[in-house]
Amino acid sequence: MKGIWKYKDLMELPTDLPLFSLGEGGTPLIQSKNIGPEIGINNLYFKLETANPSGSYKDRFAAFAIAEILNKKSKICLATSSGNTGAALAAYSAAAGLPCKIAIVEGAPEGKLKQMRAFGAKLFMIKGFGISSEISERVFDKLAKLAIQNHTRIQVSAFKYCPIGMKGVQSISFEIAEDMPEATNIFVPAGGGGLALAVVRGFQRWNQRQPGFKVPRIHCVQPEGNNTIAGNLRNGLDHAQPVTDAATKISGLQVANVIDGTDTLKACRDTKGNGYLVTDEEVFECQRLLAEKEGIFAEPAGAVSLAGWLKAVRSGELKPEDKAICIVTGNGFKDPPSIENLIEMNPVQYLDEKSMDAYFKVE
Amino acid sequence: MKGIWKYKDLMELPTDLPLFSLGEGGTPLIQSKNIGPEIGINNLYFKLETANPSGSYKDRFAAFAIAEILNKKSKICLATSSGNTGAALAAYSAAAGLPCKIAIVEGAPEGKLKQMRAFGAKLFMIKGFGISSEISERVFDKLAKLAIQNHTRIQVSAFKYCPIGMKGVQSISFEIAEDMPEATNIFVPAGGGGLALAVVRGFQRWNQRQPGFKVPRIHCVQPEGNNTIAGNLRNGLDHAQPVTDAATKISGLQVANVIDGTDTLKACRDTKGNGYLVTDEEVFECQRLLAEKEGIFAEPAGAVSLAGWLKAVRSGELKPEDKAICIVTGNGFKDPPSIENLIEMNPVQYLDEKSMDAYFKVE
Repeated sequence: MKGIWKYKDLMELPTDLPLFSLGEGGTPLIQSKNIGPEIGINNLYFKLETANPSGSYKDRFAAFAIAEILNKKSKICLATSSGNTGAALAAYSAAAGLPCKIAIVEGAPEGKLKQMRAFGAKLFMIKGFGISSEISERVFDKLAKLAIQNHTRIQVSAFKYCPIGMKGVQSISFEIAEDMPEATNIFVPAGGGGLALAVVRGFQRWNQRQPGFKVPRIHCVQPEGNNTIAGNLRNGLDHAQPVTDAATKISGLQVANVIDGTDTLKACRDTKGNGYLVTDEEVFECQRLLAEKEGIFAEPAGAVSLAGWLKAVRSGELKPEDKAICIVTGNGFKDPPSIENLIEMNPVQYLDEKSMDAYFKVE
Repeated sequence: MKGIWKYKDLMELPTDLPLFSLGEGGTPLIQSKNIGPEIGINNLYFKLETANPSGSYKDRFAAFAIAEILNKKSKICLATSSGNTGAALAAYSAAAGLPCKIAIVEGAPEGKLKQMRAFGAKLFMIKGFGISSEISERVFDKLAKLAIQNHTRIQVSAFKYCPIGMKGVQSISFEIAEDMPEATNIFVPAGGGGLALAVVRGFQRWNQRQPGFKVPRIHCVQPEGNNTIAGNLRNGLDHAQPVTDAATKISGLQVANVIDGTDTLKACRDTKGNGYLVTDEEVFECQRLLAEKEGIFAEPAGAVSLAGWLKAVRSGELKPEDKAICIVTGNGFKDPPSIENLIEMNPVQYLDEKSMDAYFKVE
């Protein structure tokens, strides 16, 4: 057994959950070749969730979520997402032969929706959803009710709504614990906080089975414009807080409400993890660094963890001897506009036979 | 050791080749959930090369190719490619701290070049290159000479030019031999034929080490518009043939000249493999089937193997009991125009709160 299902027994799942897989998990853990070494640090690693079948860690969620739907003999996958969760659920629904219907927030960028549509998912953009908090709440409640009527549950990648799907995400920690048990610090991007919570719970579960294993510090990194968890975690408060308007431009991390946030905050604190707030500009710069210095093609949200690591190093909170892993959550292909920004200053040059010599010499 | 480097000793590499990795290889091998079963066949599998770090099997090539450059202490990566080889080399060069310069054929589609540019590779589109065979030959010769002057070799994913890089590709066979030693038929897409040749050589090498292992039949699948190998393989001829104009629209498989072709033809025949020619329409339909029936997001070239498998099944040349693997070579994200075609008939629907009930019911 490869991938996340090899940890099935660790996850306390319904025993009759059918094994359903598209090859999720078992992702690479690679050492920084330039970003770390250039500042004298050889203890920086990247967990490449970009290598999952649909291009993000959400495939770990979708594998278990769809297995649960199959197990309950539901006939449909209902979800809300404008990004990676939707793409993952659309892929796994297609493979499971389930219709997949996804409610999309008004104004969701078209680029993020194409992959879902390619898998045959039906997408519905609902007026006011994600814009007006009143409408959003009503739409969500209605979807949840429709889900129950359809003998299923609404799929959202959060423990609050889909604890079984989220157990799939805990497999990230199991893989790290096996590949690099000596890691001491994990940097995790947070929108609603579900990923960081899953990472903590995964390591804690590993520790239950292997009491000698030391749970690393799990740090929660958020864009300043979506400071629901990280600031309060840093400042010693015991609850997450909603933001009135998620001002960050980092797609996938614009989650204004709290959801798993308070549990995430407490869980990270349990591990002695800290909160890091980063600017959008720092994130975009880290996306560039990952591509140009490491050959890692990440979407902006996937570069947030590195931005947090840099902040921790520069502030002296992280020591050069601390073995750190940044979770790179999603593939660069996921966010075409961010790639356009990356490449703007590196145009194709047009040459002819005569002029080419000069350009192909070593500088 | 994970990925392709765990097979280093099998590959007869220079002993001092430095281990250089971005997490390539170790890709999923998954069973068909619908396409096979719907026609009564449970013996269809997919090897998902889409899950490599830059999104195609070429990462296996680039890992060894860049390791060789580092080993020879060359200061540059020089290549010609308008697609996946270029993206892979650009990623590994970035991580290795090597400048990467890539000569691009005139008229290469912009979409395919963006990933290379994101990794910081310098791209040069050369007038007449890939259009006029005369200019193409002169440009290539010049690049090869410039490479020698720069103490390196021009990177092309073919045994004829880069045998060490191609050894990396042989790791696909080692992984299949380990994961599913009982596989009897492998379907491989071919442009120049290097992949199919690597797959044959990989299995033959495995067989040398494990004499009980039976080399599966390796089938070469080509679009009709690029029939350099498959037709002659099928018709009992002993050589590949150039085509005057690669008429296929399947990007990545438009390789009009022979390169590894004759060796590929002979190697496939050694395994009792056959040649399959498929139409572009069949390929695009298979791309759709992979997405909608299997949740596999492949570029058109990655769906060619399935088109070959379907042809083999329908013709009766492949029996339902034959355990077959289709190699899915590259990610759907690689070829945005093909995705636009896939999703054209599945638009986003615009609803409001009142109208949504009807759309979220089980049909």
